[in-house]
Amino acid sequence: MTEVATARRSRITPEREAELYAAVLDLLSEVGYDALTMDAVAARTRSSKATLYRQWGGKAELVVRAMRHNKPGGIADVDTGSLRGDLHEFMSREDDCAMERNSDLMRALAMAVHSNPDLMRAFRELLIEPEMNEFQRVMQRAVDRGEVRADRPALEYIVHMLVGAFATRTMIDGLPPTQDFLRSYVDAVVLPALGVPTTT
Amino acid sequence: MTEVATARRSRITPEREAELYAAVLDLLSEVGYDALTMDAVAARTRSSKATLYRQWGGKAELVVRAMRHNKPGGIADVDTGSLRGDLHEFMSREDDCAMERNSDLMRALAMAVHSNPDLMRAFRELLIEPEMNEFQRVMQRAVDRGEVRADRPALEYIVHMLVGAFATRTMIDGLPPTQDFLRSYVDAVVLPALGVPTTT
Repeated sequence: MTEVATARRSRITPEREAELYAAVLDLLSEVGYDALTMDAVAARTRSSKATLYRQWGGKAELVVRAMRHNKPGGIADVDTGSLRGDLHEFMSREDDCAMERNSDLMRALAMAVHSNPDLMRAFRELLIEPEMNEFQRVMQRAVDRGEVRADRPALEYIVHMLVGAFATRTMIDGLPPTQDFLRSYVDAVVLPALGVPTTT
Repeated sequence: MTEVATARRSRITPEREAELYAAVLDLLSEVGYDALTMDAVAARTRSSKATLYRQWGGKAELVVRAMRHNKPGGIADVDTGSLRGDLHEFMSREDDCAMERNSDLMRALAMAVHSNPDLMRAFRELLIEPEMNEFQRVMQRAVDRGEVRADRPALEYIVHMLVGAFATRTMIDGLPPTQDFLRSYVDAVVLPALGVPTTT
């Protein structure tokens, strides 16, 4: 949470904020981003639209902040001492059930960004970039430990590899992303691409 | 093209078929899958709706066949003698301009499959599975040549790796997939994951 955002929402209790975000995500999964209205959010949460706009500026930021609130944070703080350990830990932050729901919500957002430039901007600034920065820290530690060479080309493609796992699993295989699947993908694709041995 | 499909459309000349498919793809990029109607296709192509339904069964199959018609085929027939050569050749089948348009169209379809089960079925049977079968042949040749071990875990994730490259590049990086980008991704991710040296 940035300082600006915290200041802006200072009059809302954390409990109330969590309640609001949960309602927004319920609406998102029920009707999708394009059909989701601030009126519906106001009605569902017994808020005034003026309050919602004052606190979040608009639909895009409200939805993206709700999404971010819902995601387990702090992957960079997990330090197991090996890249394989860190990535496996990352894949285990959510149970399979939470992961399936979040993956559905992320897909709903990813679909909508193309036709909503303000959503695209919020999605990138508040969800993708912070997550990428955390990954950079995880990768930097692996480089510092000597596990990954600093000039390894796959370092540029971590997000591409992981997005491929989620997107293909859900949209083409038609299966939910599970911890088992993601850990096996890390061992089969991500670590070998980075030149890290995967001996168990 | 299956025998059944060829028989079903035998009264249409290949030129007329190509013209129809081009019109369908234009409409798809203009209005998206959900807003695309058989009425609009009929009007744009000066066909009767009855003809369209008789020849293609419905919107899902018509759109997917149009998409397939538009894609360069026969990747398995390209045999350069090395997996790296075959994959680079695959990434060069279309020029950057055609690749960007096809990638936009594929994204439009991929977004719509979730809420259209018949589109999902046609998309999988007519686009994904044939392409995956071709990749299997390319990979099998690499295994037969001794380039890739038959039990290499990444063999199961070829599609995941490639979809990640396309999806992340267009939706998160906000950049078009280019031949240069895709070849560099093949060298950085796909070949190392498969244990193939990428010395140039």
